[in-house]
Amino acid sequence: MEGYISFLFFLVSSLLLGFILVIFALVWVFHYSDGLGWDGGNPEFNWHPVLIITGFIFIEGIAIIVYRLPWTWKCSKVLMKCIHAGLHLTATVLVVVALVAVFDYHNAKDIPNMYSLHSWVGLTVVILFVLQLVVSIFVYLLPITPISVRAALMPIHVYSGLLLFGGVIATSLMGITEKLIFSLKNPSYSSLPPHGVFVNTLGLLIAVFGGLIIWITTRPGWKRPPEHSNKNQSPFGVTPDGTNDGTATENSNTEKSDMELNSDAARKRNLKLDEAGQRSTM
Amino acid sequence: MEGYISFLFFLVSSLLLGFILVIFALVWVFHYSDGLGWDGGNPEFNWHPVLIITGFIFIEGIAIIVYRLPWTWKCSKVLMKCIHAGLHLTATVLVVVALVAVFDYHNAKDIPNMYSLHSWVGLTVVILFVLQLVVSIFVYLLPITPISVRAALMPIHVYSGLLLFGGVIATSLMGITEKLIFSLKNPSYSSLPPHGVFVNTLGLLIAVFGGLIIWITTRPGWKRPPEHSNKNQSPFGVTPDGTNDGTATENSNTEKSDMELNSDAARKRNLKLDEAGQRSTM
Repeated sequence: MEGYISFLFFLVSSLLLGFILVIFALVWVFHYSDGLGWDGGNPEFNWHPVLIITGFIFIEGIAIIVYRLPWTWKCSKVLMKCIHAGLHLTATVLVVVALVAVFDYHNAKDIPNMYSLHSWVGLTVVILFVLQLVVSIFVYLLPITPISVRAALMPIHVYSGLLLFGGVIATSLMGITEKLIFSLKNPSYSSLPPHGVFVNTLGLLIAVFGGLIIWITTRPGWKRPPEHSNKNQSPFGVTPDGTNDGTATENSNTEKSDMELNSDAARKRNLKLDEAGQRSTM
Repeated sequence: MEGYISFLFFLVSSLLLGFILVIFALVWVFHYSDGLGWDGGNPEFNWHPVLIITGFIFIEGIAIIVYRLPWTWKCSKVLMKCIHAGLHLTATVLVVVALVAVFDYHNAKDIPNMYSLHSWVGLTVVILFVLQLVVSIFVYLLPITPISVRAALMPIHVYSGLLLFGGVIATSLMGITEKLIFSLKNPSYSSLPPHGVFVNTLGLLIAVFGGLIIWITTRPGWKRPPEHSNKNQSPFGVTPDGTNDGTATENSNTEKSDMELNSDAARKRNLKLDEAGQRSTM
């Protein structure tokens, strides 16, 4: 791996910051609010920020960078796909509970649902996230999708994943804004009491965490190299119709590219194949 | 250009949406608020959303994708750098006026400044944006920076630019949230009056605009090809100390790569150079 020390620095920083975000969320609800519970009151609402920050930000951040961990490059691609999907699924479960908590709290308190921009963007992000998860399981995990479809959808898969992660960050910052305006009355938010300073700081740290995850994900030198995915070929490498999956295609393409380096056309073709290989490690 | 029709579709959609955002901002302040003015009241505050949406979102979006326009590929790289920097500078001027408007409005109304998460994230984004602009002018526009420094900083330049654009989108969504909660009292925001629906829709459209710009920017096939920047070499292509600038380096690197295609090492080297060339067209 290129720049291993730098990678370790960013990885440790992002993991540490992820833990700090969860701790900040817990301090927010236990020290500055009424803790956690399921009573239709503040303790029930409080599950919303805690589970969103834990599931949709921290776990989701790890899910995004899991292919970047060089210690996993000896593992089969299908195992890594299962871990990637499993982390997304875990995040989804936590997010669903977080949504139930806030709808239940609103209903108990006779607060209207779905009027704020936070709720509009947030629900859009959650629906697209679940859609992306279901489509991706069918396309990349189950051996039923033709290679051409997998390859065609990969840039959209990568782009959507990162965009939705950015959407989660933006939605959480809107949610913090809303919550502080509504809950900080005496002293008011505008007098910037410790509660406000603390949760504003949490918001800034969430933005920094997002920046770290996107930096790690978009460094070309930190991507899972295609040649490693050759080893431990998974049973899913061959589909029931006799064709191989995206992983096997990458590898055969890479081998092919090594034999065809004597023309400009080959150079361009290889570049495309290598790009496809890099993208598919996302 | 690969996928020219698809590029045109995304380009026209993003430009059209950009215009719609500015029109929405104007309808918001003229139809749902008190118009524009410089009187310490709402008309002065209203410059804030209008100028942020026009400068920091629409013009900034164009600045980010300006290298992608295939009709500009025959123009010299330095001319495109000047247009890129000029659009950023225009955005900066509008943003500074937008900030003066909101501080002046707050001071006139005795509303505290800099207490909300919107203001914390927003000011951080503006400071980093100006820092990025100044550093980039010294590094990429003025012929004073060694090629090695230009190359080393390019990934950070591209990443920071896109991350700050994402930060602007997130900050504007927080700002809309804040403004609707504060200004929609009778009828309240929670009863979702037409004013609320309209500005929520503006928020969603801002998010979609951000998604379109990032899609256009991150498609490898839509990047300015290094070979085109060979033509119309700018006077800045050669620095006073006799070395050439980043543009010339890209081109000489590309030519070099065409001669060295007979080994695996050369393939890896070429891939790196091509990646550098792609990145530097941002």
